Amino acid sequence: MKVEVFENPSINRDYEIIHENTEFTSVCPITGLPDFGTIIVKYIPNKSCLELKSLKYYFFEFRNKGIFYEAVTNQILDDLVDSCHPKEMEITSQWKVRGGINSVIKVAYKDNGVKL
Amino acid sequence: MKVEVFENPSINRDYEIIHENTEFTSVCPITGLPDFGTIIVKYIPNKSCLELKSLKYYFFEFRNKGIFYEAVTNQILDDLVDSCHPKEMEITSQWKVRGGINSVIKVAYKDNGVKL
Amino acid sequence: MKVEVFENPSINRDYEIIHENTEFTSVCPITGLPDFGTIIVKYIPNKSCLELKSLKYYFFEFRNKGIFYEAVTNQILDDLVDSCHPKEMEITSQWKVRGGINSVIKVAYKDNGVKL
Amino acid sequence: MKVEVFENPSINRDYEIIHENTEFTSVCPITGLPDFGTIIVKYIPNKSCLELKSLKYYFFEFRNKGIFYEAVTNQILDDLVDSCHPKEMEITSQWKVRGGINSVIKVAYKDNGVKL
Amino acid sequence: MKVEVFENPSINRDYEIIHENTEFTSVCPITGLPDFGTIIVKYIPNKSCLELKSLKYYFFEFRNKGIFYEAVTNQILDDLVDSCHPKEMEITSQWKVRGGINSVIKVAYKDNGVKL
Amino acid sequence: MKVEVFENPSINRDYEIIHENTEFTSVCPITGLPDFGTIIVKYIPNKSCLELKSLKYYFFEFRNKGIFYEAVTNQILDDLVDSCHPKEMEITSQWKVRGGINSVIKVAYKDNGVKL
Amino acid sequence: MKVEVFENPSINRDYEIIHENTEFTSVCPITGLPDFGTIIVKYIPNKSCLELKSLKYYFFEFRNKGIFYEAVTNQILDDLVDSCHPKEMEITSQWKVRGGINSVIKVAYKDNGVKL
Amino acid sequence: MKVEVFENPSINRDYEIIHENTEFTSVCPITGLPDFGTIIVKYIPNKSCLELKSLKYYFFEFRNKGIFYEAVTNQILDDLVDSCHPKEMEITSQWKVRGGINSVIKVAYKDNGVKL
Amino acid sequence: MKVEVFENPSINRDYEIIHENTEFTSVCPITGLPDFGTIIVKYIPNKSCLELKSLKYYFFEFRNKGIFYEAVTNQILDDLVDSCHPKEMEITSQWKVRGGINSVIKVAYKDNGVKL
Amino acid sequence: MKVEVFENPSINRDYEIIHENTEFTSVCPITGLPDFGTIIVKYIPNKSCLELKSLKYYFFEFRNKGIFYEAVTNQILDDLVDSCHPKEMEITSQWKVRGGINSVIKVAYKDNGVKL
Repeated sequence: MKVEVFENPSINRDYEIIHENTEFTSVCPITGLPDFGTIIVKYIPNKSCLELKSLKYYFFEFRNKGIFYEAVTNQILDDLVDSCHPKEMEITSQWKVRGGINSVIKVAYKDNGVKL
Repeated sequence: MKVEVFENPSINRDYEIIHENTEFTSVCPITGLPDFGTIIVKYIPNKSCLELKSLKYYFFEFRNKGIFYEAVTNQILDDLVDSCHPKEMEITSQWKVRGGINSVIKVAYKDNGVKL
Repeated sequence: MKVEVFENPSINRDYEIIHENTEFTSVCPITGLPDFGTIIVKYIPNKSCLELKSLKYYFFEFRNKGIFYEAVTNQILDDLVDSCHPKEMEITSQWKVRGGINSVIKVAYKDNGVKL
Repeated sequence: MKVEVFENPSINRDYEIIHENTEFTSVCPITGLPDFGTIIVKYIPNKSCLELKSLKYYFFEFRNKGIFYEAVTNQILDDLVDSCHPKEMEITSQWKVRGGINSVIKVAYKDNGVKL
Repeated sequence: MKVEVFENPSINRDYEIIHENTEFTSVCPITGLPDFGTIIVKYIPNKSCLELKSLKYYFFEFRNKGIFYEAVTNQILDDLVDSCHPKEMEITSQWKVRGGINSVIKVAYKDNGVKL
Repeated sequence: MKVEVFENPSINRDYEIIHENTEFTSVCPITGLPDFGTIIVKYIPNKSCLELKSLKYYFFEFRNKGIFYEAVTNQILDDLVDSCHPKEMEITSQWKVRGGINSVIKVAYKDNGVKL
Repeated sequence: MKVEVFENPSINRDYEIIHENTEFTSVCPITGLPDFGTIIVKYIPNKSCLELKSLKYYFFEFRNKGIFYEAVTNQILDDLVDSCHPKEMEITSQWKVRGGINSVIKVAYKDNGVKL
Repeated sequence: MKVEVFENPSINRDYEIIHENTEFTSVCPITGLPDFGTIIVKYIPNKSCLELKSLKYYFFEFRNKGIFYEAVTNQILDDLVDSCHPKEMEITSQWKVRGGINSVIKVAYKDNGVKL
Repeated sequence: MKVEVFENPSINRDYEIIHENTEFTSVCPITGLPDFGTIIVKYIPNKSCLELKSLKYYFFEFRNKGIFYEAVTNQILDDLVDSCHPKEMEITSQWKVRGGINSVIKVAYKDNGVKL
Repeated sequence: MKVEVFENPSINRDYEIIHENTEFTSVCPITGLPDFGTIIVKYIPNKSCLELKSLKYYFFEFRNKGIFYEAVTNQILDDLVDSCHPKEMEITSQWKVRGGINSVIKVAYKDNGVKL
């Protein structure tokens, strides 16, 4: 899955963009029950920026998808890096309590770092 | 667009000025819906300072303008640097939730840094 | 005791996973009375990740076990390291007041560190 | 304008003095409307200390004066340095919202620094 | 006075243990009036750990003892170091207001540090 | 004025003692009106410790004394250093609002520092 | 003094209007020193409503006027009742600390109540 | 002791006046030690109002007076009723902790109530 | 046990007195372990008031006494009613957690009510 | 199951007793998973009071029992009424989130009310 982008309006300087989605939901692949969480996307754009409406629809794609917390966090990083090729990007997912357990996952990417 | 300035009353020392506009509004270029946010301008003046009333009217210019978060943040930096030629300036824009997503953009300028 | 794992969905990058169980209970080996606490598991996965439902059942195993705070915290670290062989792992246990005393125990493991 | 001083009671050691006036008011030179703010004076005294009652009356002098935020902040630094010749002094002014905009100005002086 | 210990269940790794007693009370040696406070014990165990029930009874020993804040804090450090021979230990005592005065005492010990 | 002391119960180790008096009051030497504040005494004892009841009575001595904030803060440091000859001592005085102005004074002493 | 009004846009129903001025200042008639406070105007309009800009300028009229807290609160009620003839009106004034004392004054008016 | 008054500026309507003194201090008649508290005066004026500066000096009269909490609270009510003959008056005194005990005293007066 | 009293300084009016002791401690008659709690005394005096220092020493009498929560709360009511013969009195005791259980006991007395 | 009682120490007056157990746990009869909650017992004793240590052990009896929220709440009321025959009793159970749902159950008993 890809998110639509638009041309970075200020290509000559590095700057930071943060999008925080407090209404993310997916499905547990083991129990089939819904999971609820917050996804935080933090990045420094290169040539393009993530378009917010398209990002919102991208997040909706996970609504009925059975997927582990770790997998969804990594997939979001992969998809968004693949969509806008940022200089740096960091994804944090924070999950509501399940069976008395709260979970948080953090993943990061650097352009001159690990190849995807 | 330019903001009016007045002569820096204390040209021999470096000092910091912060203006925080909590009532900024522009229009989303994709949906045509209004966006609401806070714009924080932080700078060290050189020969001139931004005049507050003119700054207020400058911000009003975006009220009916369709423009991305990233573009408006960068344009404010460009316009204000162009108006008062500061030694350093930093613009932060914080946007109210849209489709469950909060966003923050940060851009910075240094006199002996990137040319605009 | 082992916790079930699933294949790390993103083996090429290091990232952080946190699970916080606020409903942990075991039994005091001296008095036979129940202890209540919170267990925080923080780790960087290697080839596998802890499966959340299995982790929940693993914590239930301590429900009727007589064991010291220090021993249970260390055993959880040993069991979870043994289950998923992480690059790094840290266990923190926070215990409810007993005889006017609150307790906290912190244990950590590094792959290229102390052998278990 | 000068503020009365009294002899530093402990001339052999450096120490820090902070006075925070939460009831400062002056007048906007553009609109003629009153401005309200907080002025924080932080300094290390040399041979003399600012007398508090005189400082209070000094601040009252601005009540009906038309003056920019930047100018008043710098003038307070100049006047207070001129009154008590401190080793170091820092003035911060924090202004109540005008046209949706909050402002903060920070100015500093060091004895072996810029000559006034 | 000594506190009972049990064998450190994980002797091959360093980890941190914190016990906070919010119900400590002793007697002022000057006025004979009771003092109330919180005692925080923080240590890295060596071969043995402090047993919690025994620690609770150890604290009760001070209930009717006339002793200064400074002395009780240092004695607790000495007694607990003597009981479990930790690698490091830190005792903090926080006392309720007496005559309008709140007090805090902090003492620390390192194995390869000052001999007791 | 001197404060009574007692022998440091643990002369072989350095440790920190904090006494906070939230009910300090003296008199303004200009207006004759009462001032109210908090005095924080923080020190590392050498051979003797400040006795708390005597310290309380020492603070009462200022109740009807006309004295500047700066002078009282420095005098407390001088008197307490003179009473217990600490390794280090720091006095902070925080004063209630007068004429819209809050004040804070901080003074410090080191044994191998400035002679009093 | 009168405040300008405009025609009540919804004369057929009773509704509540609240204006809170957090930047009110007048002068103490005894000491000549400035007073600072918050004025809360709460009313149910009859045929006309208070115009906000005119209300702002009305409050500025007190800036250099020597007047007691009680008198200013009652005068504001009289002037505003006289300006817009409301069904009910309540004025609350809250004053910043003077000599350690905070003050609050509350005055109310009802159309079929006491004649002014 | 009497407090100076001024003519009630609005004799035709009942309204409420609150003065809160957060810096009250008197002396304990048993121990001779200072007591600290907050005094809240709440009243509906008749023909005269309490003058604030005179009220401040009235409270200072208790600074070195040995008097019980209950007596001072009742005396303030008697003195203030005697000074301004209000329609109603209520005095609340809240005292800082002494020997682990916080105290509050509440006394009230009504014009057509108990004769003083 | 009786608490010393002093003559009610204002016998002609009813008023309320509250004393809150946050440092109460007694001993559990079953386990012999100390209990900690807060005792709130609320009363309307008749001819005499409870003297605060004597009340403090009265509470100390329970320090080493084995007594149930219910009994201590009722005994305090009986003793204090017997000491000062109030018009009304209410005792509330709030106890720190024991075995995971917090307890609160409330007892009340009225002069023309149940005979003791 | 019965809880031990002791003789009501003050049989001639009605008073209120509240015990709050924040560490209650039982087992879900459907899933076999542990439930966690708070049980609040509020009653007016008749001839006997619930003994706290016995009450604590009574609550432990539910630790491994499969029982619905509604059943456990009603059984506790039945058992405790049967143990101490109070004049009135009320049981409230508050349960930790399960599948995103928090639950609360309230049951009450009056002596001259429903027969058990």
